[in-house]
Amino acid sequence: MKLLEGKPIAAAVLDDVEADIRRLGGTPPSLVFVRVGEDPASVSYVESKRKTAERLGVNSRLDPFPESISEEALLAHIEALNQDPAVDAILVQAPLPAHIESQRVFNAVDPSKDVDGFGRQNLGRLVQEDPDAFVACTPLGIQEMIKRAGIPTEGRRVVVLGRSLIVGKPAALLFMQKGPFANATVTVAHSRSAHLPALTREADILIAAIGRPGYVTASMVKEGATVIDVGINRVEDPSRARGYRITGDVLFDEVAPKCDYITPVPGGVGLMTVAMLMHNTAKACRLRRSGK
Amino acid sequence: MKLLEGKPIAAAVLDDVEADIRRLGGTPPSLVFVRVGEDPASVSYVESKRKTAERLGVNSRLDPFPESISEEALLAHIEALNQDPAVDAILVQAPLPAHIESQRVFNAVDPSKDVDGFGRQNLGRLVQEDPDAFVACTPLGIQEMIKRAGIPTEGRRVVVLGRSLIVGKPAALLFMQKGPFANATVTVAHSRSAHLPALTREADILIAAIGRPGYVTASMVKEGATVIDVGINRVEDPSRARGYRITGDVLFDEVAPKCDYITPVPGGVGLMTVAMLMHNTAKACRLRRSGK
Repeated sequence: MKLLEGKPIAAAVLDDVEADIRRLGGTPPSLVFVRVGEDPASVSYVESKRKTAERLGVNSRLDPFPESISEEALLAHIEALNQDPAVDAILVQAPLPAHIESQRVFNAVDPSKDVDGFGRQNLGRLVQEDPDAFVACTPLGIQEMIKRAGIPTEGRRVVVLGRSLIVGKPAALLFMQKGPFANATVTVAHSRSAHLPALTREADILIAAIGRPGYVTASMVKEGATVIDVGINRVEDPSRARGYRITGDVLFDEVAPKCDYITPVPGGVGLMTVAMLMHNTAKACRLRRSGK
Repeated sequence: MKLLEGKPIAAAVLDDVEADIRRLGGTPPSLVFVRVGEDPASVSYVESKRKTAERLGVNSRLDPFPESISEEALLAHIEALNQDPAVDAILVQAPLPAHIESQRVFNAVDPSKDVDGFGRQNLGRLVQEDPDAFVACTPLGIQEMIKRAGIPTEGRRVVVLGRSLIVGKPAALLFMQKGPFANATVTVAHSRSAHLPALTREADILIAAIGRPGYVTASMVKEGATVIDVGINRVEDPSRARGYRITGDVLFDEVAPKCDYITPVPGGVGLMTVAMLMHNTAKACRLRRSGK
């Protein structure tokens, strides 16, 4: 069993992105975060992304809005950012409050600045296998881990557990593409899938993105599989000072011994998500300058 | 074994579309076909689609161009159709000549008139499960057959053989959606997939869209499966006056006895494709009038 840790791979990606940014020269890429409300997890995600941006020489800014902002006002702000030639990349931190239709907001981000890849134009480009597509950072980070660890995918079974717009579907679309570290046989399973354990046992690479702590048990995993745990679940834990701990969708202790590779939580895919956001930001800046 | 014929189901769909069009009232929906060159299959497809349109009271027109038209000129024509308020729907008949980048042409069609659903906006909307998406006619027709035959999909295994933009990927995206006649566990397999026969044997519903005559044999199909044959392959046949016959991707004679349901070729999915084009055209007209 080899622990597939995010830290060294994310660091290698960030080194590459830093070199890309240096090569680009000129004004540093600029990334604007839009955050609505003060959800502690959102606050901390944005903090951590901004720190990484700063370290890489990406110019980042946070535009915070109160929970009470109307959808219209938020859309108007995004439109202003779309129009601003000094902004290369826009990230609207999810989740948004219930009175705002998230999809509409994500679709409002100019496709050339949509570094989260949640907008319909970029989703469509992903389906079309357009190399200029911005692909959602978490699935892109999963593919990058697999690529840098040299885990083969061609012709092999990838099972994606979860069909969200943010992880499950784009991950499936990525691994079914033609090309290296893709060309896989992809299955998308979910909470309605019958015979789930038999199904996940087919996986050479199992991507767990179902959002339930410890959902994937040893009996659901084939001997020698690669298991990518995308879950970031808060579980009450009175032994911790903050009263909770973060666990994945995989019951790590019993699953790990069966795996060729497994990602830990925390310290796995989460770090890749931030790294790929930087990758996408540098790409947005590069495409903008090349006039695309 | 029940033969799942396209004719009665397509007829029922067309009756519904005709009623929809009557309900809409006013000027009939208008559909413009753009055809490049004189490929006999394309000529005959467009003919057959136009005949159906006429029968339903859809106003159709053919804009034919010579094989030699430049990409720029074709794009300019599409832009004129996009701008024309009298045009509800545009269909650019595939395939296009090699000197034209098909994807660029499909993406140029205004998303609100893109009744083939090949453009990136509509592909993105399909990923987002937006009910206003135009979904490619063949996968939509497959779902419609399954719906009208009352074949359950929820939680069951759908295996799609082929990952094209026109059939395989949109079919996979449709059947993995939340909702009735979807909610399936979807696998996309293709020519690079390892252990293909074992894989296709997992299918409760097997959608063969790989474009190889007789590719799916009895040993690749589970007893009691539903087999949807999307293949339209021309095979030389000196016994026919025209010198060829049309066969599907499934070796019908040996596969049929194992199936609960199977579609014939010809007379299966092909008829549904035309029916769903009419459905999408009526939908384009309705959405346009409702100001969407």
